[in-house]
Amino acid sequence: MFDFHLEAVDGAARAGRWTLPHGTVETPCFMPVGTQGSVRALSPNDLEAVGAAIVLANTYHLFLRPGEQTVAALGGLHRFMGWPHPLLTDSGGFQVFSLESLRRVSEEGVEFRSHVDGSPRFLTPERAVEVQWALGADVAMAFDHVVPGGASREAAADALERTVRWLVRCRERFEALGRGAISHQPSASGGRPSDGRRPTADGCRRQTLVPIIQGGTYQDLRRASAEAILGAGDWDAVAIGGLSVGEPKPAMLEVLDGLDPILPRARPRYLMGVGFPDDVIRAVARGVDLVDCVAPTRMGRNGTAFTDDGPVNIRNAGHRDDAGPLDPACDCETCRTFSRGYLRHLFVARELLGLRLLSLHNVRYLIRLAARARAAVADGNFDGWSRAWLARYQAKEQA
Amino acid sequence: MFDFHLEAVDGAARAGRWTLPHGTVETPCFMPVGTQGSVRALSPNDLEAVGAAIVLANTYHLFLRPGEQTVAALGGLHRFMGWPHPLLTDSGGFQVFSLESLRRVSEEGVEFRSHVDGSPRFLTPERAVEVQWALGADVAMAFDHVVPGGASREAAADALERTVRWLVRCRERFEALGRGAISHQPSASGGRPSDGRRPTADGCRRQTLVPIIQGGTYQDLRRASAEAILGAGDWDAVAIGGLSVGEPKPAMLEVLDGLDPILPRARPRYLMGVGFPDDVIRAVARGVDLVDCVAPTRMGRNGTAFTDDGPVNIRNAGHRDDAGPLDPACDCETCRTFSRGYLRHLFVARELLGLRLLSLHNVRYLIRLAARARAAVADGNFDGWSRAWLARYQAKEQA
Repeated sequence: MFDFHLEAVDGAARAGRWTLPHGTVETPCFMPVGTQGSVRALSPNDLEAVGAAIVLANTYHLFLRPGEQTVAALGGLHRFMGWPHPLLTDSGGFQVFSLESLRRVSEEGVEFRSHVDGSPRFLTPERAVEVQWALGADVAMAFDHVVPGGASREAAADALERTVRWLVRCRERFEALGRGAISHQPSASGGRPSDGRRPTADGCRRQTLVPIIQGGTYQDLRRASAEAILGAGDWDAVAIGGLSVGEPKPAMLEVLDGLDPILPRARPRYLMGVGFPDDVIRAVARGVDLVDCVAPTRMGRNGTAFTDDGPVNIRNAGHRDDAGPLDPACDCETCRTFSRGYLRHLFVARELLGLRLLSLHNVRYLIRLAARARAAVADGNFDGWSRAWLARYQAKEQA
Repeated sequence: MFDFHLEAVDGAARAGRWTLPHGTVETPCFMPVGTQGSVRALSPNDLEAVGAAIVLANTYHLFLRPGEQTVAALGGLHRFMGWPHPLLTDSGGFQVFSLESLRRVSEEGVEFRSHVDGSPRFLTPERAVEVQWALGADVAMAFDHVVPGGASREAAADALERTVRWLVRCRERFEALGRGAISHQPSASGGRPSDGRRPTADGCRRQTLVPIIQGGTYQDLRRASAEAILGAGDWDAVAIGGLSVGEPKPAMLEVLDGLDPILPRARPRYLMGVGFPDDVIRAVARGVDLVDCVAPTRMGRNGTAFTDDGPVNIRNAGHRDDAGPLDPACDCETCRTFSRGYLRHLFVARELLGLRLLSLHNVRYLIRLAARARAAVADGNFDGWSRAWLARYQAKEQA
């Protein structure tokens, strides 16, 4: 369980297969984000139809509403969401550090006010692990201290060191939960244990804890972070956090270039929060295996569709009488069924179906893009394929 | 084509089968409403999955946006919506007469201002027929003068007489279009003709025009309206309009009771704008075959679900930890996949998926309710079944 099998490598780009308790994930892989336990406007059936292998949910949001006790009482996150395939929960670190004025950070953890009802809340490494254990996703993330893209060297160093200390605390609590030394009652009224906490007949682990590399845009700090994490234990995967948070685009790519040689080849690498098509391809070119982002659903709700020729704004008047599909190369329900003219009408007339159809297409686009990258790696042609793809994607933008 | 086969009768309730160019409709039948060419929050796949046989769209809305020329340029309404099964368009009469202050009625037609952009528009019986011909639904409705539920006898009489005069004009234009005597250009830029206008190899008609009985809540006026309409020609179906527009509930049932004996047995009867479950059953008990309403989707978006035990408000705190389905008797995707606790969470967290899942359930509920009524008629047990159903549906309300 949690084994990663590297099937092919082409330059720094990789094609692999990650075995998780609820299924196998072929990499490179784009993970759609179900912030509050629902990928906006999409159903589990839609996600299966577009080929999603693993879905992400946000611990911060589910902790506040409906609360992990309610999710556990309703059978755990898989059953709650109606998604029997792999799931990953983030730790809440990114969200609480985004609250700026609403939070207070100490070595113990982060005090903050709920954006839902203003109530005071406290997340610690231990609590973040407990909440994720109750949710029961296949993959849980360590609680990290995230700094903005423009953070000073001091702030970045301080945050990365705290993240390492917190990682040790996360692992201690995670192991204690795994041994059954700490029981986490799902709810006062009873309820079924979630998948994550249910002991398996074969004694297999049902959840893994993944550490997050921090260090801002400072190459030496990133290296120090990676070395400290890798020295602290053997992890099933390694995540790269604190990127795509406002830093210049080249700085992110430099960090990825610097990390690639020192990260273990035999473990999947997850770049958090990246999901615009060109960023995904550039990340895969630098050894990244997994990415997640709300971009495809958020852009879809705004009427923007990803295509190989760059983003298309479906609201444009030029699409009014266009009987052609949104993306002739796409095999999703939206592109197989509807004309650009109809999709434009849905957005102009503010019909809910429009939000869903463009979200569906964008998620399918990114999943298919990752699969195309995978095929190119397997064919030993990733460099040529990705250069051609990037040139076409950016051609209109540059014209 | 357009034949109605009456399979069973039980009291006044009927079970039939209506053959339309795009498919066969088993009656009693509930028709979901796709106001702007989309049943709110549902896709054509969803509609197929819940067993919808025929969908309604609003001529008024499509006339204003995107315009019938655009729909025709995009291949006609079936192709536009991605719905290859039967479609019905209303005439726009109900909508323009609902505009109150924004309209001016003359014998020629109705002048009004578009709710979209305030532009002046004019709908006449001829224009309403032309627009529907361009849209190309299987069933088009005559342009009628609708009065509110509390209208005086004079106003109701005036409107019904105008509706009969307009029916004659509608039919003249409809027949001229059918003969090809008037060509209706889909768009300046060309484009495929819509299904409705395409001549068929076998010379079959592709669209039928259905008259609407008016007369307010006055039994003698309703009778006069029906007799005038039936005397004016042989129609494939007859509609009953101007009900469920604010009149007391018993008044609607009296009108239906009065019309049942004088309407032709061999033609389907369509009661316009009725769709709450108990009203549907009371209408079927009085000889109605087809109904339509936005209630299931509108109520669904408000978090209200239809069940045999009456409406359920999914936002209630009592559903928070409820792992059971929304409606244990239902076979829809919502009830098969998700718990009440999850559905409540979606509404509390304002997730788009909630709007869709409750709309889906409600439409399925009404389609299944109509099918259950049909089975009861076939079994000769409609009276007993419908009394038991109504008693249970109203039990909580009355408790």
